[in-house]
Amino acid sequence: MRRAIEWPSPADFAAAPDPATLERWDEADKAARPGRLERLRARFEEHAVDAYFGIRRENTRYLTGFVLGEGEEKVAGHSGQFLIGGSDVVVLADSRYSIQGRREAVGARIEDVGYDLPSAWPGLLGSIGARRVALEGGFVSHALWRRLEAAAPDVEHVSVEGWVEADRAMKEPSEIERIAAACAVADRALATLLPKIRPGTTETELALELEWLIRTGGAEAVAFDPTCLVGANAALPHGSPGSTQIASGSVVLFDFGAQVAGYRSDMTRTLFVGEPGERDLGVYELVARAQAAAIAQVDAIVDGDLELPSGRSLDGVARGEIDADGRWPAYGHGLGHGIGLATHEGPSLSRSALDVPLPSPTVFSVEPGIYLEGETGVRIEDLIVLDAAAGRVERLTRFPNEVIVVGA
Amino acid sequence: MRRAIEWPSPADFAAAPDPATLERWDEADKAARPGRLERLRARFEEHAVDAYFGIRRENTRYLTGFVLGEGEEKVAGHSGQFLIGGSDVVVLADSRYSIQGRREAVGARIEDVGYDLPSAWPGLLGSIGARRVALEGGFVSHALWRRLEAAAPDVEHVSVEGWVEADRAMKEPSEIERIAAACAVADRALATLLPKIRPGTTETELALELEWLIRTGGAEAVAFDPTCLVGANAALPHGSPGSTQIASGSVVLFDFGAQVAGYRSDMTRTLFVGEPGERDLGVYELVARAQAAAIAQVDAIVDGDLELPSGRSLDGVARGEIDADGRWPAYGHGLGHGIGLATHEGPSLSRSALDVPLPSPTVFSVEPGIYLEGETGVRIEDLIVLDAAAGRVERLTRFPNEVIVVGA
Repeated sequence: MRRAIEWPSPADFAAAPDPATLERWDEADKAARPGRLERLRARFEEHAVDAYFGIRRENTRYLTGFVLGEGEEKVAGHSGQFLIGGSDVVVLADSRYSIQGRREAVGARIEDVGYDLPSAWPGLLGSIGARRVALEGGFVSHALWRRLEAAAPDVEHVSVEGWVEADRAMKEPSEIERIAAACAVADRALATLLPKIRPGTTETELALELEWLIRTGGAEAVAFDPTCLVGANAALPHGSPGSTQIASGSVVLFDFGAQVAGYRSDMTRTLFVGEPGERDLGVYELVARAQAAAIAQVDAIVDGDLELPSGRSLDGVARGEIDADGRWPAYGHGLGHGIGLATHEGPSLSRSALDVPLPSPTVFSVEPGIYLEGETGVRIEDLIVLDAAAGRVERLTRFPNEVIVVGA
Repeated sequence: MRRAIEWPSPADFAAAPDPATLERWDEADKAARPGRLERLRARFEEHAVDAYFGIRRENTRYLTGFVLGEGEEKVAGHSGQFLIGGSDVVVLADSRYSIQGRREAVGARIEDVGYDLPSAWPGLLGSIGARRVALEGGFVSHALWRRLEAAAPDVEHVSVEGWVEADRAMKEPSEIERIAAACAVADRALATLLPKIRPGTTETELALELEWLIRTGGAEAVAFDPTCLVGANAALPHGSPGSTQIASGSVVLFDFGAQVAGYRSDMTRTLFVGEPGERDLGVYELVARAQAAAIAQVDAIVDGDLELPSGRSLDGVARGEIDADGRWPAYGHGLGHGIGLATHEGPSLSRSALDVPLPSPTVFSVEPGIYLEGETGVRIEDLIVLDAAAGRVERLTRFPNEVIVVGA
């Protein structure tokens, strides 16, 4: 049985990036954008289109540099939507966003269509010579699609999904650095929170305090609302923090992430409040073993220069450990997900994922769990960077995932 | 010229709602839902449909009681999407959401379609006898629409927009109470922040502190990321807080809101740091006069039992004050917007709004502004409840909108 370890100190983790580093990442993005556009355009010929219309905010930032905050697309009108032709990049920005558009979307033509894209649509398509345009069909609403089609009846509208997302799953060096920096901010925040996790404090209080530590500790935002779940609540893989208080003898599960320079982290730690019970320790040990087995599998394959495993097979490795043990049921969710500009992106590690080799270089979570309804729950989630060509398989989340006892 | 007034005290504003009040609002929603469904179904006959498929999270909560947080729809899969027939209400909830679905969507049938709605679609439609289904075309993606249509080729799919939104613009008493409660939380937060607005503190620090005060002061969330803009930054109607420091002789503009029991507030205050300059005072006075003129117009019409004004005409009243004065240009945005479960909803008060009478009872913002690029900006935003039948025209935001000097 594992023994509890000493608490990590906030100083164990990397400091928030300095302005020079932020500037360097910004330059790296600018330098990478022509290549990103080239990869997108390489799909044009294969699918016989000559333009791409995108509205997903992560894709806007990735391809054009124009930044919308999380949820901002709901109030931004058409601002941030973009049209890419064989040689042009057009970014839509209404009067509220035009200064920002010119500053951020370097090299793009900024167009203000106000709230009426359909009226401007034939002119926009004509200006880049588009005859057959691919649109992000999973994000463009049906109503907008019909209006665009009606506005330009001579242009063919083709629904495509996952093009930019597939490219985004392959990470550039500066993207990996930013995810690592976001991990470090989150690591430090949890290390700072440890002494405040005491019997009597509620899930809501701790989640809010953790968010505060992240947002004042070098992150521009949280990656998502932090989760804090105590005892039996930890058995709900989709629980929200509530008024339940920390109590000795229970677990407390934190699932949280930071956003640094656009890129996100995601980590889950399940801590023990007071002396851990035998069952909870057993569950923890098994979840840790399942996680380690999946990571070891990636390691062995990279070491052996073999074909990379699929996300489906890795899920099977972790799940297999828990099933083989037989004492408790394995997690119902997937083993993990890619992460970057979005908290959840490709590749997918799950029973329903495609059985194709993982991309590389990439970053993904490995987060097995065991949930005993009405009793307890344990999930351990780390981010792994995989770069097969460089022989690199490394944990970006550095907060220890051994048994940690708090609230004593 | 207006004189600066004494600071309001946090105790001037209503306390956060107690558990009994929250419970009462919850019961009011349950009691109101049959009527909301009836109003929706009243549209079925007019448009010859026999079912409604919705995915917008505010509509889910309004019609079924199932609650998704802001942005949660991005990771919830089909959970929270709903199908309403002549007598049935079906709410989709995968395994992560099924317990919540049963608890919140009282009287609804909960169905788990996992991540594959198209496969389940013919069965779902058949189970409620739908032959012609209305779908939220402004929210359902084109790709999903095509898959649903292909899955049930014998059922007609009709794109509709704004049905539930039009009903949501008319507010029930408990909805107005909740918006007022959200206003009070925001009022208190700003009153508490006043002593902390001092030269040297940055926009980002103040915005974060204001968010903290809102979220620890009785709100379950902020309505949107609070804005704090200093001096010339206040001239950007869509600025984000940055590293600019509070400086004597400039204005500081806060635009922020709280969310209480699902309902939101929205308020803008422009404060003076140190002794106000003559020009800034003049701008402030004119913006205040424009706002007062629009509100007085509503008041006079309600007092006179006349037909309610349109949102377009009210925008014209406020804009007319600034134009008639002639010293500075009027705001480029609209005068205001409805508010409730969403921060921006119907009715719209703007130059492009429909020239039809405002709904009643309703709640909307009145937020004229003057923006002098590179120099200064002033916006004053209050929420007004309008209930023509009750002769009620009242400001729900109670924080004073006179000249207030801070940082002295």
